[in-house]
Order: sequence, then structure tokens, then C-alpha cells
Amino acid sequence: MSILLAAPGRDLSKLKEAILHLDDSLEIDLWPAIQDKNRVHFAVCWNHPDYMFPQLPNIKAVSSLGAGADHLLKDEALSEDIPICRLITPSLKSGMADFVLHTLSCIRHHQTILSRQKSNRIWEQHSVIPRKNLHIGIMGMGEMGRAAAELLIRNGYEVNGWSRSGCELDGLNSFTDNEMDSFLGQSNVLICLLPLTGDTRDILDLDVMKKLKKPAYLVNLARGEHLVEEDLLYALDTGIIEQAWLDVFETEPLPDKHVFWNRDKIMISPHIAAITPADEAAGIIVENYKRTMSGQELMFPVARSSGY
Amino acid sequence: MSILLAAPGRDLSKLKEAILHLDDSLEIDLWPAIQDKNRVHFAVCWNHPDYMFPQLPNIKAVSSLGAGADHLLKDEALSEDIPICRLITPSLKSGMADFVLHTLSCIRHHQTILSRQKSNRIWEQHSVIPRKNLHIGIMGMGEMGRAAAELLIRNGYEVNGWSRSGCELDGLNSFTDNEMDSFLGQSNVLICLLPLTGDTRDILDLDVMKKLKKPAYLVNLARGEHLVEEDLLYALDTGIIEQAWLDVFETEPLPDKHVFWNRDKIMISPHIAAITPADEAAGIIVENYKRTMSGQELMFPVARSSGY
Repeated sequence: MSILLAAPGRDLSKLKEAILHLDDSLEIDLWPAIQDKNRVHFAVCWNHPDYMFPQLPNIKAVSSLGAGADHLLKDEALSEDIPICRLITPSLKSGMADFVLHTLSCIRHHQTILSRQKSNRIWEQHSVIPRKNLHIGIMGMGEMGRAAAELLIRNGYEVNGWSRSGCELDGLNSFTDNEMDSFLGQSNVLICLLPLTGDTRDILDLDVMKKLKKPAYLVNLARGEHLVEEDLLYALDTGIIEQAWLDVFETEPLPDKHVFWNRDKIMISPHIAAITPADEAAGIIVENYKRTMSGQELMFPVARSSGY
Repeated sequence: MSILLAAPGRDLSKLKEAILHLDDSLEIDLWPAIQDKNRVHFAVCWNHPDYMFPQLPNIKAVSSLGAGADHLLKDEALSEDIPICRLITPSLKSGMADFVLHTLSCIRHHQTILSRQKSNRIWEQHSVIPRKNLHIGIMGMGEMGRAAAELLIRNGYEVNGWSRSGCELDGLNSFTDNEMDSFLGQSNVLICLLPLTGDTRDILDLDVMKKLKKPAYLVNLARGEHLVEEDLLYALDTGIIEQAWLDVFETEPLPDKHVFWNRDKIMISPHIAAITPADEAAGIIVENYKRTMSGQELMFPVARSSGY
């Protein structure tokens, strides 16, 4: 029996080491080098190639290497009766929450403007934006959204949360599916932490941006496919959106010629908002592998119907 | 009787308005337009010209317009029997603490590197620096230092504080005057919040920088004169200091031709770490004016012997 780790372009040696550190009797393959394809029962994937699963006849369960499972759900070669799970580690949640807090701190202190002024030798003072002027709207109150909301509330921010069925959390203004307009109208910093599904693809469009309180800021830390890129450009040009902080993009790495690079009002980070540490990931992988082999239910299972 | 507001280059109209809002019977002059120089009994100053006080024969007390009083103490025309006070408002303290926290967040998330990568269309990931890898050393545990230390401790940072006679604060590692070396050896993010006095001028020199833990970061939010500029350049070039965040400079605005502008490892902000809001300043100014006129002791008095 073997666990296959498949994430083209990523160095998985640390993860392999961390798994073996927990249980050195385990057999680990690193895609594309597989000793015996018939022995692969469990796979951990991030953007695996679409010709991979047809080669693995005995796969019993698959884990995403991160919090999103969209790359697994879109693979039609992955049979619907194979259970799918995600990796949600404490550091992933706290890292994401911390990144949200950092982004807000940068917005409040005009960090992008200061960096630009530095490059251009400009000395111009700007008043710090008080916390009370930022009305945070988090889209998606899953593990990530909840962790971010908790941290922001603890740091004195007003937080609105939007999710399919609402979310109970001390200090949070919770909005459900059909209260979207009211949620947007009460928020001026829209933070996307949604899973990528058929319902949420292209959700950050001009219509949504127009409904935000002004001055409006857009922060996308979920998936590039949530954002309609040309709508953002139009919204920035027309003052509908003041500034955008993007950590995720339709194509990653963001192509050298992409128009976003040259926009002063867009801050770009290279998909670093939340990274899963190898040791924490290893613990969940080993646990889910053992559950798979003994026929138990997986931790952090993904429902194919909802997409998360 | 009149209160003189003197801060060349600053717009003081809001402050005047805020003072009159509290007590519209007060007479306010804005330097250099003074109705009757004999009537000026109280002055609020920020970098006033040195020929000002000789023109004011009946001055009874002087307030700084900010937390520092060095610009008043160095004025030999200001007689030693004139009491001096400072303006310390709640927002000034919380703003400064917040700015320190923001700087640390930027260091941890490699914000200056990300901004530079954005300008150069570079997609390169960097791991966030864990809080536990930053050992904060605050120089100066006055009103500002204490507020910053409290906020950082609340946010999970390890904080060392250095001051003349030590400082009692829950969770703080306090160091006194003669424990400087030990303080520096246990800190790798040195944050200067000292008052500017004869003892503290040029305190941030190569000797101090060399004694810090590595990788070392320097943050100066106090006065430009605390820093030996050429020592910082040498320390950055030789890896003694990794990065510097400077909000204050010997000459402000920082001259267009200054070498700091062109250094990637120096982040520059235009003296914005803490700004005194007009309404809060007005309250303290009116109170200290009234105390002066009735012969009471001032709030936030400055001792000429210590310089703060």
C-alpha cells in the first residue's frame, strides 16, 4: 500500500520526511515516480495532471494538499465514489487570519502609497484610516472565514459575514444567502474567502462591487476564478473600487505581461496568504490514510454536492 | 491674554477651531500674525523660529505641539524659569502603538519585498516570519514605549524594554540603563521610542547595531537625531542590519537627494507614526493654559534636567 504525493512544481521532500517521521513503515511515492501503480491507495494532490487518476486503479480516497478542493472536483477521471478530503491545519487558519489582519493594517496605513512614494522620493503625509471607517465584509464563513472574523473582531474591527446559511459567532453581523445586498451595502472592505464552486465562480463582478459602501476595497485570498478581472479594472478606473489586494489569480504564477502588474491600485502577493506547514499536514494525511484503510470516515471531508 | 500657536509649515486652523470650540472666550494668535505681543502668555510650538521668544516678554509657559520637547529645550532664548510641557493624547499613544504593530506585520509578511516584486513583475513566494522569531526590543519606556509594549505583548510578541530605571509591566522583560548589552543581545527588532536628549542623540550607532541578535531590524519612530545615518548604511551593506524602517530623519522633509531614498533595505514613512488629533490636543492645551494662568502645575511637564 502506498501514499502518492502529487503536486507538480512543488518540492514535496519535506512533506514526505514529515510523514515518515510520524510512521516510518509507510510507503510514499512522489509523482511521477511511482514504484507500483497498483499499490497506490491514497493520494494527496495539488494541481495534479488529468491523466494521473486513470493510471491508479486501486485509489480509495484523495486529499487536497490545501484548503481548496476545486482542482479535485473538476477532474472527471476521479470517480464520484472516491471520497475527497481537504487539509485544514491550525497554522493554515491562523496564517490566513493573520494575513487578513495584515492587509487591513496596510490599507489603514496607506502602505502601497508609501512604497510608491519611496520609489519616487515623495514626502507626503497621509492620515491613518481609523478602524471604525473600515466595515469588513467576509464572504465565506468556513474554517478560514471564521478564523479571520474572530481575529478581526478581537482587534476592534466591525465584521459582517456572508455565508449560505449564516454563522453564529460572538460580535459578528451574520448574513445569509439571500441577504447579499444588505451585506454588501454595509461593507466597504470585501474579503473573499469562499470555496470555488459553480455558484461562486465569477462572484466578484461589477454588480457586487457597485453595491459596496464607499470608499470600497477588494481583497481576494480565495481563488483567482472568483474574480471577473475586467470588472475589477473598470471598477478601479471609475472609482467604484479604491484599491484591490490580490493573492490569487486565474493563472498562477501571474503572467509577466498581465495588466494587473502595472496597476498602482492593485497590490499583488504571490499566493502566500496561507501556507500549510509540512509537519501539521503530515499528521492529517497519516490520520486520513489510516481512516481510509480501516474504512472510517475522513477528517475534513468534501461534499461533492456543495463543492466544499 | 492670548494663546500663540506656532508651527511653521503646518495648517493650524483646525487646532484653533477646536480650542475655540472648547472655550470661545479665548484669544488665539497664529504665528507670525500676533495682535499684541505683550498679551501672549502661553505658546504651543513645533519647530518655532529661534527669534520668536525674544519677542514675547510675558510668556508664562510653553507647550510642545507633540510628544517631544527637544525643539523647545534647545532654544536658548527660552528662559529656564518658563515651565515646559508636552502633548500626550490617548490617540497619540494608541496611534504610535498601532504603527509599531503595523511595522512588525510588514516585516513578517515581507511587505517591502512584495512591493518591489510588484514593480518588477516578479512572482516569488516568501514564508511569513513567525512572531516567535521576532524578539522585540523597545528603547524608551515612556508613554509611547509603554503603550507599544502593551499592544505587542497582547498580540503575542516577546518584548524587551530598555529604560533608565526599568519599567514594570506584565509580560515585559525589563532592562535598566546598565543592562544595555544584555537587552540588545536578546533583541533582533530594535524599536527606538526614546526622547531626544544629550544622552540619546546618536544612540543608534554601529556599536549598538552590532550587538543585536541576527537577523536584525531597526525601526526608528522617535527622532532622526537618534540615528547615526552613515552607521546604518554601513550596517545594511555588511548584513549587520537586515532592514530599517524609518519614520523620522535629521532633516524633514527628507531631502530629495538623500541616499536613503534609493536604498531597497530602507522603508521610509514621512513622520506619520503618531499624529496628535486636533480635538484631543485642544483639551490639553486649554487645560494647561488655565493651569498656567492660575499658577497650578502643568499636565505632562518636562523636566529640563532629564529632557523629557
